Amino acid sequence: MEGKNRYRNSESMIVHGNPSFQAAKEAGLLDLAVHNTGHGTLALPDGREFINMCSCSYLGLDAEPEVLQGAIDVLQRERTMDMAISRLRIRLAILDELEARLSTLWRSKVIVTTTASYASAGLLPLIASGHLLPEGPRPVMVFDKSAHFSMNLIKPICADETEVLTSPHNDLEFLEDACRKHARVAYVADGFYSMGGAAVVKELLALQDRYGLFLYFDDSHALSVYGAAGEGFVRTLAGSELNPRTIIIASLGKGFGTAGGAVMLGPSQHADLVGRFAGPLGWSQSLSIPAIGASMASARIHGTPELAKRQQALRANIRLFDEHIPTRTAGEDFPIKVIDVGPEDVAVERSRRLLERGFYSSAVFFPIVPKGRAGLRIMLRSNLSQADVRRLCDAVREISAPTA
Amino acid sequence: MEGKNRYRNSESMIVHGNPSFQAAKEAGLLDLAVHNTGHGTLALPDGREFINMCSCSYLGLDAEPEVLQGAIDVLQRERTMDMAISRLRIRLAILDELEARLSTLWRSKVIVTTTASYASAGLLPLIASGHLLPEGPRPVMVFDKSAHFSMNLIKPICADETEVLTSPHNDLEFLEDACRKHARVAYVADGFYSMGGAAVVKELLALQDRYGLFLYFDDSHALSVYGAAGEGFVRTLAGSELNPRTIIIASLGKGFGTAGGAVMLGPSQHADLVGRFAGPLGWSQSLSIPAIGASMASARIHGTPELAKRQQALRANIRLFDEHIPTRTAGEDFPIKVIDVGPEDVAVERSRRLLERGFYSSAVFFPIVPKGRAGLRIMLRSNLSQADVRRLCDAVREISAPTA
Repeated sequence: MEGKNRYRNSESMIVHGNPSFQAAKEAGLLDLAVHNTGHGTLALPDGREFINMCSCSYLGLDAEPEVLQGAIDVLQRERTMDMAISRLRIRLAILDELEARLSTLWRSKVIVTTTASYASAGLLPLIASGHLLPEGPRPVMVFDKSAHFSMNLIKPICADETEVLTSPHNDLEFLEDACRKHARVAYVADGFYSMGGAAVVKELLALQDRYGLFLYFDDSHALSVYGAAGEGFVRTLAGSELNPRTIIIASLGKGFGTAGGAVMLGPSQHADLVGRFAGPLGWSQSLSIPAIGASMASARIHGTPELAKRQQALRANIRLFDEHIPTRTAGEDFPIKVIDVGPEDVAVERSRRLLERGFYSSAVFFPIVPKGRAGLRIMLRSNLSQADVRRLCDAVREISAPTA
Repeated sequence: MEGKNRYRNSESMIVHGNPSFQAAKEAGLLDLAVHNTGHGTLALPDGREFINMCSCSYLGLDAEPEVLQGAIDVLQRERTMDMAISRLRIRLAILDELEARLSTLWRSKVIVTTTASYASAGLLPLIASGHLLPEGPRPVMVFDKSAHFSMNLIKPICADETEVLTSPHNDLEFLEDACRKHARVAYVADGFYSMGGAAVVKELLALQDRYGLFLYFDDSHALSVYGAAGEGFVRTLAGSELNPRTIIIASLGKGFGTAGGAVMLGPSQHADLVGRFAGPLGWSQSLSIPAIGASMASARIHGTPELAKRQQALRANIRLFDEHIPTRTAGEDFPIKVIDVGPEDVAVERSRRLLERGFYSSAVFFPIVPKGRAGLRIMLRSNLSQADVRRLCDAVREISAPTA
């Protein structure tokens, strides 16, 4: 079945996607080279400044002086950029300290990875082969249609180990049907989706209770943003301890503010197998050393009242935006807002006009969203003043109005 | 053809590999948590120090004060750990500067990636679909049997786009036969292999001339180590300009001493397509910001006589080792030396005894090498004194002698 494009189709992606990318480039929306001014804006080479409304650093921790100092301190103390050996063999003791701290914070066995997508590339094939599930047959894998590219990319690798299906988005009937038909099912999904909306976690846990459904979540957009210790959206619903049928991964490069990824395993799961056989997790590039120091500092902040303060500031900004701008994501307690536009060229043009007004939004189009359903993606953050959010809302209204 | 284990087999890998990993762990050879002393050794929590003979930082650039300062300077100047947006949309101007500098240094269009394996995960599927080749039909892909795991992992993804074959190691007849049978062939290989030996680059280029063979090399172990500007082993043989039928990728986390990966494209290749459609290259985690600053500093050093000085010191250490220790890799002008042992348990025991004598070697066994062909891997570096190399050779002789 080689070359059948069962799971991906580069030709279609490029033929249908590239014209929009080209239009976005010509509109000055791609490949922007900037300097961070340190006062809330990014500066272009010609001196124009704008506010990045598409940063996933939802709590502003990327710019926290303590986090930056954490990176600097570890470089000065360890005097190396790079251990240049698999972490499975030798690693800095502070990486163990970081994992211990995050494990306590998030009440699970946390393994830190180079990126979140590395975690998926390493873990999903071992889920497909049954090795990260409780004893039993190989599962049939069901990927949610809207699961992030970083998981979809791995589908053909999983399909070399087991049967792989794609379910409609959040389709519980499809899943329950699969659970009835197959001895074991593993479901792969986002916690919060990058185009808005969340996994139906409670209902999925009910299917887990009933059928033993295995759950794999990438909760990248919700880590740090949700939970008393920033443990993410799924964990706030999935009980105080991770059960052996659930694995959560997430990026440390979004709300957490540093770089890398985190895997959360339950107490009975095989951390050794993950380190040894989860592909990229055992290769010689592990999380860069300054990112370990920065992450230690971010983890410290996650254990203080400062976290809740930032979460509340973020929520206030989300509510303020929702009061002024109607979107299909309005009312979601979540920083990603998508303004549906429709035609790709109109989305690009509106994003260009918003940038003229000082705010960078992402024009999103195929293959990020379905054809003809382009839009503007705007991400809120805790470190935006309410005045800036109001100015943003005014600008969004202006660019959405029919042009003269 | 789902679940047929045509390209990978986790069960076999784990069943046959895990006992050796377990033995290595029990011998104190895995999961070592260390502090870098800054005087050439790593220190264990109990105070024992050893020299890491398995660092891929062949030129010691990871510990160069100028490189560390580069990382610190960029953090102090840009005041963020993380742009938290796809580099395709917004990136720090210094990332463009780094790419411009490396492009000049290595006479090609250089794109910097989060890791080298990200580059393969992004590029190989676009080679399979024909989009990174000159106009024409999709190629049949031939992976060298010994190609690194990071490329093998991607085989099933490529197989969803085209036919994928595996060739015996460096088998020119197999390749020429494939070139005769198929309209187009793309060959995927390492430049220098992580278990010793090199690609037969000249002969491959002859096949390229004759049949239009497309060549994809991961030259991670040779970047910085080879070439007047550290352009790597393949580039030193492949002419002064990259042709449109050759793509080279490499890690910046080995000889280069920092973190991340680099893609070298020829002047006519589509850098825009790579940025937009090569999967992980467009996702929101790009190279961490301190690593950009460190890489700028390493690139500066690559443009000075300091590079040749370090390359020569490395070669002197390689020659010294080869004079004293016979290996199948002796005489190779290359820092990775593999001492063949045979049985897995003997390799683990010898590695343990070498560590007792103050030198960490990697015990390598299945799935890193075939079953029953375990060995010790030792990597030489420029920043080892000749006295240390002599002590290492003495220790290797002691542990290889029959025990009383």
